[in-house]
Amino acid sequence: MNANPKFLAETAKVDEASIAPLPRSRKIHVTGSRPDIRVPMREISQSDTPSALGAESNPPITVYDTSGPYTDPDVQIDIRSGLSPLREAWITERADTETLSGPTSSYGQARLSDPELAAMRFQLHRPPRRALAGRNVTQMHYARQGIITPEMEFIAIRENCRREEMRAALQRQGGSIARLLGSQHAGDPLGAAIPEHITPEFVRDEVARGRAIIPANINHPESEPMIIGRNFLVKINANIGNSAISSGIQEEVAKMTWAIRWGGDTVMDLSTGKNIHETREWIIRNSPVPIGTVPIYQALEKVDGKAEELTWEIFRDTLIEQAEQGVDYFTIHAGVRLAHIPMTASRMTGIVSRGGSIMAKWCLAHHRESFLYTHFEEICEIMKAYDVSFSLGDGLRPGSIYDANDDAQFAELKTLGELTEIAWKHDVQTMIEGPGHVPMHKIRENMDLQLKLCKEAPFYTLGPLTTDIAPGYDHITSAIGAAMIGWYGTAMLCYVTPKEHLGLPDRNDVKDGIMAYKVAAHAADLAKGHPGAQLRDNALSKARFEFRWDDQFNLGLDPDKAREFHDETLPQEGAKLAHFCSMCGPHFCSMKITQDVREYASQQGVTDTEALDRGMAEKASEFREKGAELYRKL
Amino acid sequence: MNANPKFLAETAKVDEASIAPLPRSRKIHVTGSRPDIRVPMREISQSDTPSALGAESNPPITVYDTSGPYTDPDVQIDIRSGLSPLREAWITERADTETLSGPTSSYGQARLSDPELAAMRFQLHRPPRRALAGRNVTQMHYARQGIITPEMEFIAIRENCRREEMRAALQRQGGSIARLLGSQHAGDPLGAAIPEHITPEFVRDEVARGRAIIPANINHPESEPMIIGRNFLVKINANIGNSAISSGIQEEVAKMTWAIRWGGDTVMDLSTGKNIHETREWIIRNSPVPIGTVPIYQALEKVDGKAEELTWEIFRDTLIEQAEQGVDYFTIHAGVRLAHIPMTASRMTGIVSRGGSIMAKWCLAHHRESFLYTHFEEICEIMKAYDVSFSLGDGLRPGSIYDANDDAQFAELKTLGELTEIAWKHDVQTMIEGPGHVPMHKIRENMDLQLKLCKEAPFYTLGPLTTDIAPGYDHITSAIGAAMIGWYGTAMLCYVTPKEHLGLPDRNDVKDGIMAYKVAAHAADLAKGHPGAQLRDNALSKARFEFRWDDQFNLGLDPDKAREFHDETLPQEGAKLAHFCSMCGPHFCSMKITQDVREYASQQGVTDTEALDRGMAEKASEFREKGAELYRKL
Repeated sequence: MNANPKFLAETAKVDEASIAPLPRSRKIHVTGSRPDIRVPMREISQSDTPSALGAESNPPITVYDTSGPYTDPDVQIDIRSGLSPLREAWITERADTETLSGPTSSYGQARLSDPELAAMRFQLHRPPRRALAGRNVTQMHYARQGIITPEMEFIAIRENCRREEMRAALQRQGGSIARLLGSQHAGDPLGAAIPEHITPEFVRDEVARGRAIIPANINHPESEPMIIGRNFLVKINANIGNSAISSGIQEEVAKMTWAIRWGGDTVMDLSTGKNIHETREWIIRNSPVPIGTVPIYQALEKVDGKAEELTWEIFRDTLIEQAEQGVDYFTIHAGVRLAHIPMTASRMTGIVSRGGSIMAKWCLAHHRESFLYTHFEEICEIMKAYDVSFSLGDGLRPGSIYDANDDAQFAELKTLGELTEIAWKHDVQTMIEGPGHVPMHKIRENMDLQLKLCKEAPFYTLGPLTTDIAPGYDHITSAIGAAMIGWYGTAMLCYVTPKEHLGLPDRNDVKDGIMAYKVAAHAADLAKGHPGAQLRDNALSKARFEFRWDDQFNLGLDPDKAREFHDETLPQEGAKLAHFCSMCGPHFCSMKITQDVREYASQQGVTDTEALDRGMAEKASEFREKGAELYRKL
Repeated sequence: MNANPKFLAETAKVDEASIAPLPRSRKIHVTGSRPDIRVPMREISQSDTPSALGAESNPPITVYDTSGPYTDPDVQIDIRSGLSPLREAWITERADTETLSGPTSSYGQARLSDPELAAMRFQLHRPPRRALAGRNVTQMHYARQGIITPEMEFIAIRENCRREEMRAALQRQGGSIARLLGSQHAGDPLGAAIPEHITPEFVRDEVARGRAIIPANINHPESEPMIIGRNFLVKINANIGNSAISSGIQEEVAKMTWAIRWGGDTVMDLSTGKNIHETREWIIRNSPVPIGTVPIYQALEKVDGKAEELTWEIFRDTLIEQAEQGVDYFTIHAGVRLAHIPMTASRMTGIVSRGGSIMAKWCLAHHRESFLYTHFEEICEIMKAYDVSFSLGDGLRPGSIYDANDDAQFAELKTLGELTEIAWKHDVQTMIEGPGHVPMHKIRENMDLQLKLCKEAPFYTLGPLTTDIAPGYDHITSAIGAAMIGWYGTAMLCYVTPKEHLGLPDRNDVKDGIMAYKVAAHAADLAKGHPGAQLRDNALSKARFEFRWDDQFNLGLDPDKAREFHDETLPQEGAKLAHFCSMCGPHFCSMKITQDVREYASQQGVTDTEALDRGMAEKASEFREKGAELYRKL
């Protein structure tokens, strides 16, 4: 799989599987108040209802689209050039940044001038940007100034996902489609307040009050703006990254394009192996979604893995190096305080966060408070010069059911709440990372405490895994917890793949992880009553009921898998028009019988479902009036 | 896959994969008050903690075992002979049954005398049994008489799963193992009342009050007694069965043995294709778990799929046919009343239960109340003559998120509550089937209503699926709902495989479905605070923390998959002794760092975790006393 890094700059190619069109889907763009606000969405077209069932025309369904230009047939993708910098004009217009002559970090400079790396280096000809001295370029800062940025408008359009247009079209069409597709259950938002229509002003307000973040580094102008907050669609993150053991640069880019194809809203590059500076550059330049990292991983590489040799200076240089590459959010484990570490000694699984354990080791070795904590305001200064968002790491998250919700975990969470207020003082966007391994009945406490201690800063949770006994199935043990905590208020769910605890995920694992988490996130949106969330469920269910097999596949999260499963039993193309499936066979299908029920009623002189309703009610009533008694034969 | 049915009686062989030993597991038996109460369990042995980490001896862990004699090396399995009838003596001793000269159903007689079927017929030489006239042979009847049957004692031992012995052994051993393995989180049982120790008397009492059932047909003496009830371990059911389209007899037997190997507590044979009488016989004779069916499926076959031609007489003959074969529970859709049918007309997906739609069609065609409803007491008479338990079918369960919790569904549930009381009047054991497709926030209402309307009769739910948009992943959409409703009080979860809505499950799908549901059931047990449930999580987490890779695999639900995943990246046998894994590599492992933390502390003169705790607290306190201030460098 690994391309020879020596020739990468010449030979790197986009992963063909990531650009193949999805069946009957097309990329559309909704234009905002200015022509360069072009918000991508995916439209899935449907076939008509068969004439035997009413010959309705089924409208196309618009869905949120994370796949970026990769699925746009009008765009030629060459990963050696990277994506088009769609936000560049917006950033320039704000006139609060300067273009640097080159990287200002020592490490960034050293890597750039190393001739050995030339062949694997991404050929970026655009120098990095930084805020002008004294300026703050965060979306939170703009929001608090009352400024609605193009990013915010882009997000408002994106979150609405054309649902009003779809509803209006459905209403115009009338009949059962309008009725069925236009309505949904009232949710139980548990304190979330999702408006029926997202306005740019609403986005601004949520960002200003810290309840949502827009990860959007000024050095990642290729990213399509997205938002993470409790009053928006629940998002998911996919982790990729090479390790000392395996994986190459092109493979990591392909994992990123593969992850966003299936719905990854952000991607974290957790590389810990060789050439992680260069790997990251390739990923960011080709990523339409925000990229997160854990800078301490790379800092540790720079001291050959000896945690006690880490210094604030090395870490600081790493932050600047990565900020100038365009990383959109940093996981920073500044909540791992010296005083918290003893609380972990009696744990079953100690400190399982890599970042947390690195910092714990450092604290112990020096008998000093963590430099992430003592330098926190300096970190804020860096964050606001590039608009990097904080993802305040839960270095003391529980690694087992046994350790769930213990003192160490909640002591850290309290610290994260304090750090959030400091970050907000600097107008630095902030989200909070959450557990981990938590049994179902202890999940709610995590959410409620986080909302309280961190003043509604977005929660970003890993799972949580609801049991430890299923290695190989932790995408499922954790999707259960993720769906629940998403309903309770978590804004973004960090995926867990089936390989968790066992090995590095390959492409199949990445997809399995994404799918489990798209399910969890959508289940959470439904439970919260997110406006329009049920539309896709309704459309798919209608297709299912009408035996529109292709529509059922195409409306699903994974058309390829659905089609493959169906075709295993009934491969003939004609079977996709059949009014039955392999589960019951032609004479035994419950859906077919229900249709027969309706048809039968129709032959009896009732012609639509309401009339059937009335007609049947009369028959049932007649039955009762005739004195039909229960058990009269007994 | 399909063996030629002509030679089946001669050639049928046990599926080799179902009898292969699980790694480092051995079958043990706990003997009850009489030597023929021998309760099977699985004991998983562990290796010692490496000396660097304390050289502890880790005790074997006992787990609930559904796999029957298949995993007992002392038993030779020949599926042509069937399993040993372990309950036969108990049934005989009760002296309330008669041995019939042969099947009393017309259909059973016809099949037995058809020479064409000889080669595929299971050669059972044991005639069927039936209650003596006027006698009632249900476990509920005995329970209400105050009788503790051997089945009840067997179940008490089984449910306790040697946890007291394990705890005592851990206590004797002392040290951190005792502390870590002996404790668990208090649960949130939400009204369940699970005792610390299950006594035979508790089993009797739960069965007597209808809060639990023991599916145990007197004609299925091969079954190992198990219980379904809210105050016991949450159980799972696996569906198998051929259809008109695919699947043969031997394949179905293999699916059953495969399903119980991985944890299926009961198996439903939902066959709708050819030779379903013979298929069922093979399955029951070889099944150590209770077998459930939906008799209306076979009745419909007998009238060539024409629902309107169904009669009470045909149905009745089918019940007797199957009861005399040994089916342990019947799904009967007696709650689909004529007056409920109009309520489904405005649904998105109508009636999706096959049984429900068959009965709806019959009711409409005849303009009459369902014969299942009008003959319900006659059905009870049959059930109590063989001890077949009711699984009152939810024929009107929602088939889409849109239809969740609607009037039709709850009207039927109310009827099921009324029928439960009638069944209980006859001392017939009864559980209630539940949905279906339900968004997360509407699941609790299902559970609460069921408990209320059905007076705590056990709930047996299909999922529920929490979204419709993921065909191909419905084991996950539904495991989320299953875990939640399991926590809320559901006693048994009916699995959903990845093929749901798309095709018939093959072996891989069966295993994937089982695994998702074992996860859901165990997550529910943890949340309810089931005594001892966390012991396996604790043991696995301890193994994980100590890099005992093989123990981690072996303690998991699926050792094969865990090992396979691990070996994809690090196949060398030595890697399973390594103190790192492929995720982070040797220098970057958080678990290793945590161990370094402990080790470091130990070098500083503290020798165990409590001392580390004290030592570190002193250091941290010292730090604070020295006036360390936050941000003093700023």
